[in-house]
Order: sequence, then C-alpha cells, then structure tokens
Amino acid sequence: MKKGRIIILSGPSGVGKGTVLREVMRRRPELRFSISATTRPIRPSETDGVNYHFISREAFEKLIADDALLEYVTYANNYYGTPEKPLDEANAQGISVVLEIEAQGALKVFERRDDVISIFIAPPSYAELERRLVGRGDTAPEIMQERLRIARWECEVAKKYQYIVVNDNIERAADQIDAILTAEGCRAEYQSMILFEEEK
Amino acid sequence: MKKGRIIILSGPSGVGKGTVLREVMRRRPELRFSISATTRPIRPSETDGVNYHFISREAFEKLIADDALLEYVTYANNYYGTPEKPLDEANAQGISVVLEIEAQGALKVFERRDDVISIFIAPPSYAELERRLVGRGDTAPEIMQERLRIARWECEVAKKYQYIVVNDNIERAADQIDAILTAEGCRAEYQSMILFEEEK
Repeated sequence: MKKGRIIILSGPSGVGKGTVLREVMRRRPELRFSISATTRPIRPSETDGVNYHFISREAFEKLIADDALLEYVTYANNYYGTPEKPLDEANAQGISVVLEIEAQGALKVFERRDDVISIFIAPPSYAELERRLVGRGDTAPEIMQERLRIARWECEVAKKYQYIVVNDNIERAADQIDAILTAEGCRAEYQSMILFEEEK
Repeated sequence: MKKGRIIILSGPSGVGKGTVLREVMRRRPELRFSISATTRPIRPSETDGVNYHFISREAFEKLIADDALLEYVTYANNYYGTPEKPLDEANAQGISVVLEIEAQGALKVFERRDDVISIFIAPPSYAELERRLVGRGDTAPEIMQERLRIARWECEVAKKYQYIVVNDNIERAADQIDAILTAEGCRAEYQSMILFEEEK
C-alpha cells in the first residue's frame, strides 16, 4: 500500500482558498482535513475537535517542549499549531491529509521536512487581490493597510512552495490541484517499488 | 509567455508506449513530437524528416564534436541522437517537445540538464512484461533472452525518471501523463513571475 502524503495549502486572505478547497475535497473524499490545535478560548458557535482542538496553554507548551508539532505560530497571544503524530499515523494507513495553514507556519514545515506537497493559491495578480480586499470596504484603513502588507509578503513567499495555482476560476483551480495530486502519486520515489514488488 | 518544456518518455519494448503517446498527443495537439537524427540508411517505407532526419556519418560526428546533441547512442554501428538547438528554439516559443527515447539516451539527458520532464512508462509488473514479450512467440530464444535482459535493466533505471506511469489501462495512463503536464505547469519556478508581473 502507498503511504499517504501531507498536503500544505496556503494563500492570502481574499483569494478564495476555502471555496477551492471545498471543491477539491468534494472530488477527493478520501482526503482528510487536518484540525489544528489552539489555546484560544472556544467560541459559542464552535465545536471542539471540529473547528480546532482546544487545549490548555500548558498542554500546548508540552507539545512544543516534546518537539511534537509539525508547525506552530503565535497570534494575538495564543498558540495555533499542528501535532505531527496524527499526520504520520494517517499517512502510514495510506491516508493523505490536507493542512490549510498560514504561510508563516508553512515555511516552518518546509524547514522541518521535505516530503510534503505544498501548494500556494494565488490571485491572478497582486493588484487584483488588492482590489478584492479593498472592495469589501468594511474595515478601518489601518487594519486594511496591515492586511495588504501581509498579502504582499505572502505573494512574495509563494515561490517557496512547490506549486502555485492561480485562482482565476474555481473549477480550473480545482482541476490543477487534482492534477498535482495525481502527478505526485506518479513520482518515481513512490512508484519504483511496484515494479519488482511481486517477485520479492 | 511561458517557456515550453522538453518531455522525455521511455519504457520497455512491449509496454504499449506508442499507443499511450498517441492518446496523449490527441489530447494535447499543442505538443510537438521530436524527430531524431540517424546515420542508418533510409528504408523504402520511410520519409526523411518524418521517421528520422537521415544524415551522413560526417554530419553526425560534427554534431558530436560541436556538443550540439542533447543525447545520442550507437546501435548496430549507426548513430541515433537528438540535436539540442531545435528543442531550445521551440521551448523559447512556448512549445513543449516530446522525445520518445531509449533509457540509455534518457540517462544521458539527465546528466546534461535538470529542466526536463521525464516519464517512464512501466508495465504493471516485470512478470507481466515478460508474459507479453514471450507471448508474441515470434522470436529466437537467444534474441528473446536479450530483450528480457534489456527490459529488466530498463525497469531498474525507471527510478531515475521523475515520474513512473503504469500502463495497465491506456486511458488511465494518458490521464496520468496529462496530470503530470498540468502539474509541471503549476511548478512555482514557472509560475512565480506572474504574481507581480503586471506591476513592473
């Protein structure tokens, strides 16, 4: 049986990655979606183990001390991260797991391991993204400036991902991610064992 | 405009690579098929520039001396090879070119450049390939032994290609090659310029 893979998906706010990801998961129901852990308090609309695994600061800091996280970031004085063991266990069972994470966390994953599939969902252009973000018009100028600054940085780090999929059309973006997952399954390092396998 | 790519396709005799390749070219008529050069005499059924570019031994040896060949091999006292310049010219115009070449030539390409897409078309298993080759039953035993030896060596070098596509079904093999070409078009090194391009 083939090992599953870790699939990292990132993209700037406003690029439509949630919609593209839902379409990919609809086409490939065998994919599992990774749930992050966080120390942020649960909100009334949220369910533990669905939106996040809500854990204590002590528990999270133990995961850090044990080097048990694939990646983590700090945001507004709370931790957000991905425990590594459940991913390795799913992969060993042949299950591929999708992580929708921020570029900041993704860069940490790339330093830690080289066997992940990484896809950055990009706007047709930075100018277009700016139009989409500003077009919402519901935000204070200083927050908007900060969002644009982050989006610009994210587009700059996009080249550190293996693949960049431009979301100018949801179906086409999903087609391309589908093709990337098929192609990665044909990589020689995952396929070469099959040729002589039955003779062993 | 995006640069075209060189696509190397190999696979053992009897694996059905001609059929798979025709299906791929049918789906992607924008691909160009590379015509090799050879010093072997033209046969009555052949057309110069269609089956091969038939050239003199002197002309071929000048290409070797000028380091103008992407790869070449010697077989039955004749040269077979691929001039590099027409490929580079096509790629610069955005045209991708498919080379159907033997593994021996492909390995030379991998040493020469790292920007090609390489796909090995494999049988479902070596045992299956053996059955297909022997099943033809039209060949002297010593020639059959030689073919099996070559096929076995080819399956062993398959892991030096980037991708291995198993031809258990022509449509599925063509789907996978299609997906590989789409995925390669999404590689960050080919895509990353688009994000800020229009602002320059």
